[in-house]
Amino acid sequence: MPHLNSEFARVAIVGVGLIGGSVALASRKWGGAETVIGYGRNRDRLTAAQKRGVIDEIATTPDGLRNVDLVVVCTPVDRIAEDVLTILRATEGTPALVTDAGSVKNKLQQAISAEYSGNRYIGAHPLAGSHHTGFEHASANLFLTRMCIVSPKDYPEVSPETARICHFWEQIGMKVKTMSAAEHDRTLALTSHLPHLTASAVSSAIEPEVLSFAATGYRDTTRVAAGDPELWAAILEMNSAEMVRGVDRLVDVLSSYRKALINQDKQALRTLLQHGAENRRHYQDDSTHPDDGT
Amino acid sequence: MPHLNSEFARVAIVGVGLIGGSVALASRKWGGAETVIGYGRNRDRLTAAQKRGVIDEIATTPDGLRNVDLVVVCTPVDRIAEDVLTILRATEGTPALVTDAGSVKNKLQQAISAEYSGNRYIGAHPLAGSHHTGFEHASANLFLTRMCIVSPKDYPEVSPETARICHFWEQIGMKVKTMSAAEHDRTLALTSHLPHLTASAVSSAIEPEVLSFAATGYRDTTRVAAGDPELWAAILEMNSAEMVRGVDRLVDVLSSYRKALINQDKQALRTLLQHGAENRRHYQDDSTHPDDGT
Repeated sequence: MPHLNSEFARVAIVGVGLIGGSVALASRKWGGAETVIGYGRNRDRLTAAQKRGVIDEIATTPDGLRNVDLVVVCTPVDRIAEDVLTILRATEGTPALVTDAGSVKNKLQQAISAEYSGNRYIGAHPLAGSHHTGFEHASANLFLTRMCIVSPKDYPEVSPETARICHFWEQIGMKVKTMSAAEHDRTLALTSHLPHLTASAVSSAIEPEVLSFAATGYRDTTRVAAGDPELWAAILEMNSAEMVRGVDRLVDVLSSYRKALINQDKQALRTLLQHGAENRRHYQDDSTHPDDGT
Repeated sequence: MPHLNSEFARVAIVGVGLIGGSVALASRKWGGAETVIGYGRNRDRLTAAQKRGVIDEIATTPDGLRNVDLVVVCTPVDRIAEDVLTILRATEGTPALVTDAGSVKNKLQQAISAEYSGNRYIGAHPLAGSHHTGFEHASANLFLTRMCIVSPKDYPEVSPETARICHFWEQIGMKVKTMSAAEHDRTLALTSHLPHLTASAVSSAIEPEVLSFAATGYRDTTRVAAGDPELWAAILEMNSAEMVRGVDRLVDVLSSYRKALINQDKQALRTLLQHGAENRRHYQDDSTHPDDGT
């Protein structure tokens, strides 16, 4: 018997890794799903996930998804558009909805809209993660209290499909906010992608020979530079227009710093440092801020 | 009776804050000092430090330091040169040595050498700190296992005075490395000052309105931007020549990122990210890396 609050009795996960595995576990624990189907090309991994109780059933061809209510695409961001289109075609004529967990939204939505005019795909970005990878680290609680951005193509309209997708992410514990895909990408360029690029750039600018003298300032400022280059190359490339703007803003500030240093102008340096400190004070470091997986 | 290993029976601290207070406590606990004299202009604060057992005696005029063996100047970096010169004059004709804890060394040494040609001042930079301030947070263990850079003006010579100063910092628990003041400033520009400037710049580039969507990447990359603007303006100004070079290196990397983003060149982005990740892997995050006080 379906859970009373269940939107979706049969939920399929495409890409059963850390995020996909956590959506699987959370769907069953909090989302009212009766059955979770893992979909992917690597049957061994899917069988391992099934044995671990992360998923109930396995599908290795798109046809295996004809009988589901919701598909959550959790593959790497540069594969999502293709995977979503494959799923939409395979489930044509069914009421199955499709959402995703990609950290860039605009280019993705454009690629999907170019080939699909229906209303069964509603993009999303759950702001949750971990530096671990693989379903072995998946947790039903990964999303609790975290934010999820839902970006329907007809924003600010709230179609019945959008409402159901929002409800799904809410049911697994998230605070949902809708915004356009363009606004999502502008926002995340600043809050996530620019800090990553900056950490990487400053790490590159510091030769390893001096690192035995590095302290906690270096440690934290460069920490995320250690993140997966493959994953981040895809994110930066897919959000390249916003990232150019972000880099330009950063270089503008650095130019002001350079000028103040050349002039040995302590007052100008103080003003620049005060501005950075003031902005930083607006950040509330509480538990609602997710680990963004780096 | 002096401690068998004691280099300095009477140690004076100029500037009894977190660092000065910790040097005071460590001198007595590990350094073999019999008596620690706190020197400063604020008698109320010195009396409070004395009541707390951080210092034994109080001096509020330079003459009160004529009877000491070692003076450790722990005032803000832009006041050290003046304080060191005052102390050197007040202790003229005595064998008292003077060292300091400033995080920039070259400009300081030049300012001191311009007015003092003797060999009683040996500059140092203990790489230890805390985000707390004030002697209330001082600890005799702050320096244990941390690095201390000693920069004698006649580097690479090791005069008897240099050897005694190195021994002092070693006795309170530090690993001492000698290098020229210029090399110190080049090294710290990269390992400490550039990460700070970068964190501040990226914090400035991100408007506070979007911060409710920020995650752990933002949190860590910008953390030190919250540090004291007054303190850091002095450090950056005093190390301005090296900092200009550091900013130029960073902007060079950012220009490569910008070009790759404009070209939507995922391979170039991957290469840049790999370089940042590779450099970061050389950093060993172990307990010998100090909190640099931000």
